[in-house]
Amino acid sequence: MNSDEFRKYGHEVVEWIARYYDNIEQYPVKSRSLPGSVKAQLPGGPPSESQPFDTFLKDFDEIILPGITHWQSPNFFAYFPANSSPPSVLAEMLTAALGTQCMIWETSPAAAELEERMMEWLRDMTGLPECFEGVIQDTASTATLVALLTAREKASSFRSNRTGLFSTATMRVYCSSQSHSSVEKGAGIAGIGRENVVRIPVREDFSLDPAELRKAIETDLAAGHIPCCVVATIGTTGTTAIDPLRMIGEICSEKGVWLHVDAALGGTALLLPEMRWMADGIEYADSLVFNPHKWMFTNFDCSAYFVRDAASLIRTFDILPEYLRTRTRGQVNDYRDWGVQLGRRFRALKLWAVIRTFGVDQLRAMIREHLRLAKMLAGMIGADREYRIMAPVHLNTVCFRWQPPDVTEDEADRLNEKLNHSLNDTGKIYLSHTRVEGRYILRMVTAQTTVEERHVAEAWRLIRETASAISSKGRAVDID
Amino acid sequence: MNSDEFRKYGHEVVEWIARYYDNIEQYPVKSRSLPGSVKAQLPGGPPSESQPFDTFLKDFDEIILPGITHWQSPNFFAYFPANSSPPSVLAEMLTAALGTQCMIWETSPAAAELEERMMEWLRDMTGLPECFEGVIQDTASTATLVALLTAREKASSFRSNRTGLFSTATMRVYCSSQSHSSVEKGAGIAGIGRENVVRIPVREDFSLDPAELRKAIETDLAAGHIPCCVVATIGTTGTTAIDPLRMIGEICSEKGVWLHVDAALGGTALLLPEMRWMADGIEYADSLVFNPHKWMFTNFDCSAYFVRDAASLIRTFDILPEYLRTRTRGQVNDYRDWGVQLGRRFRALKLWAVIRTFGVDQLRAMIREHLRLAKMLAGMIGADREYRIMAPVHLNTVCFRWQPPDVTEDEADRLNEKLNHSLNDTGKIYLSHTRVEGRYILRMVTAQTTVEERHVAEAWRLIRETASAISSKGRAVDID
Repeated sequence: MNSDEFRKYGHEVVEWIARYYDNIEQYPVKSRSLPGSVKAQLPGGPPSESQPFDTFLKDFDEIILPGITHWQSPNFFAYFPANSSPPSVLAEMLTAALGTQCMIWETSPAAAELEERMMEWLRDMTGLPECFEGVIQDTASTATLVALLTAREKASSFRSNRTGLFSTATMRVYCSSQSHSSVEKGAGIAGIGRENVVRIPVREDFSLDPAELRKAIETDLAAGHIPCCVVATIGTTGTTAIDPLRMIGEICSEKGVWLHVDAALGGTALLLPEMRWMADGIEYADSLVFNPHKWMFTNFDCSAYFVRDAASLIRTFDILPEYLRTRTRGQVNDYRDWGVQLGRRFRALKLWAVIRTFGVDQLRAMIREHLRLAKMLAGMIGADREYRIMAPVHLNTVCFRWQPPDVTEDEADRLNEKLNHSLNDTGKIYLSHTRVEGRYILRMVTAQTTVEERHVAEAWRLIRETASAISSKGRAVDID
Repeated sequence: MNSDEFRKYGHEVVEWIARYYDNIEQYPVKSRSLPGSVKAQLPGGPPSESQPFDTFLKDFDEIILPGITHWQSPNFFAYFPANSSPPSVLAEMLTAALGTQCMIWETSPAAAELEERMMEWLRDMTGLPECFEGVIQDTASTATLVALLTAREKASSFRSNRTGLFSTATMRVYCSSQSHSSVEKGAGIAGIGRENVVRIPVREDFSLDPAELRKAIETDLAAGHIPCCVVATIGTTGTTAIDPLRMIGEICSEKGVWLHVDAALGGTALLLPEMRWMADGIEYADSLVFNPHKWMFTNFDCSAYFVRDAASLIRTFDILPEYLRTRTRGQVNDYRDWGVQLGRRFRALKLWAVIRTFGVDQLRAMIREHLRLAKMLAGMIGADREYRIMAPVHLNTVCFRWQPPDVTEDEADRLNEKLNHSLNDTGKIYLSHTRVEGRYILRMVTAQTTVEERHVAEAWRLIRETASAISSKGRAVDID
């Protein structure tokens, strides 16, 4: 493809993207593809000869697009968002064009230094301690793994990296029963073992119970185990519970245990001074992750990892083959030493584009509006006697359950599952679910980049209408 | 930024990219930035108010671009390439616009099924065994970590993931002294320990010596250790040595050890039937990684990981929180279970764009041309009595050393280092170095997407000219 062809198709793709965003509400939010239906349309083998890019675009429209779940739709209320925004897309275009591999400073000094500056901006925008240094990771799963590994190294005086865990006393990791699955996955990867993740019981609001944490650590110490890391969460995945950071931090400080804060979702809300109560006690934290790629309008992937003692992080990952020895070593940040991967994309560019193009005031206004929409939705749901709010609404997520009168809890489980699938199958909105105390509940997240009050109100109307239709078809008969 | 503004700036960015590629040879290949110079031009804090996107583009040109090392320049001969191409950039634009998070099939069925199909295409294009299943990882570092973890699980009957490595006999990993640093880094991460990576001596051509491998495994078995994984390399980072896969595979098969093949660079050459001798014995391999983002014209990041027994891979990473339970579970590939991260970008799209737009014939022709250029360069260097070829040229990389008459080996080390820096400081070409048997050598990789014979010839002219200038300035005096 020559330069003229690139121009031609590039402009076509820009028009495609603009039209896509203009018309995004026309698509079914959750793809209606059946398993195997996309693959069946793709040839079994690659073409020998070059095909015009037109044919790629045509197949993209006809084969791929129907199989896409539209995360950028304002009617996407599922999981947590993976928000994009126009300035972020434009910056990603430039990142792709430059194709720099940002493993070390020398392989693109501007990428390393922009990353350093953007991490300072984010730190200051969210009121994190000034001593925190930051690095962009791909995902919060990776960032939490990085925290566990650094904690593991500190707990073994940096021996486990060298000699393995084979002759070490059992290490233990603590998080609440509501914490993200990446903690267990990370403990498995790190050789600590998933069964050495101690799931601490939660209080009524689904936040970690610090008294139980203290008890668990003391029991483990008495058994000769090594408490290695506590993961506290600001905004759990299920219900956005906020763990009590100060009380947890005091225990970690007393026992000498690494405190990692998973603020993957909630971190963005720290842009708002009125939400900083969530971070009370942050001075005890050793590390924190939050994902601009979730709620801060920056394309996936972009996960901001902060650490108090960058030297211990670097000591965990540093490895220096000859071909990476440079003249600037020691004077600059070589971010390959700050995480798992050697190769790194130029991710700081999109953060810069987003923060500048929105400006902090507008970012704050958008996040405030999302919080308001969640409160509004919770108000509407709470006012309907057939529905129950199932968890405190601190952030952008409302957990609720349809609970018609005269229906058992078990029957309500089945009804809510049916309601969830029926809603998603309409293509008009996309919700996800979780279980709380064994009960199936619906989650609705009001935080997509372009979501407005009308989308939330219409979603609620659709939920009630769909529930009514299920009811009138005869609950007991129709439930499979 | 509204839709009209996105169109306006999108078209501007497309024009910028086209101009960038048209003029890429005008930029100094390796950035001349001094440490801190980019960061000093970036405000200490974020703007409160929205800034027009024009100002972003202006600062991108004036502040960022001078700090970029131009990996897409045909005069980039350093490291291994991280090749992009116009169709890959166009596909990345679409990926960014869709902003789908491809953690499970349901969150974008087309992404999962295109990934499955593209991995089949790549497998067949490179002649890998039909039983291999594939998944896209971000980097070869991650893919090698994934292989080590799966090997660790198999070696412990899937116990280490659950209970950790604490009561396990010491596990050992084997690779050659020339293998990539990611093996040691991965062993550290996995809790196996870097010191439990046994570096097997190499033969004269820098390939792993299988007799030494057998000896090492047998010694470890006698000591009660658990041989867990052997990493063989097709195209080592330093000199592109090719480890003897069949002989290594026979040992692995006999001893029941996982065999992972690091073909991060070399895998692309397997597109050529005449290069498949490198993969002789591949039927013994349990897993293999190769990076389309290196030499196959597909934007970083895109690392193709293949595994013989996908069930053991999934068993290593599978974790199922309630909110990820879907109706299609078990019928489709949920790729979050195939690696470290939960969140995943839609990377298969750019692979599809690249393979279709080039076609397999043209991809093969380009790779053949790169191999020819390396042979040509090696011929020119070998014909000059002041230079020595330092390793066999199997692929796209020529390792050489300037060795003027009457110069000691130590002095030649300093001269070559000076030559390397002098060349890179011209901005005209960018080379990197390594050490072979303690000696400083230069590496020149003739595999950038747009490199032509004239670039290689001109680079060689510049190398000789620069060396002459260093010589005539008085070697002994001028070397610092």
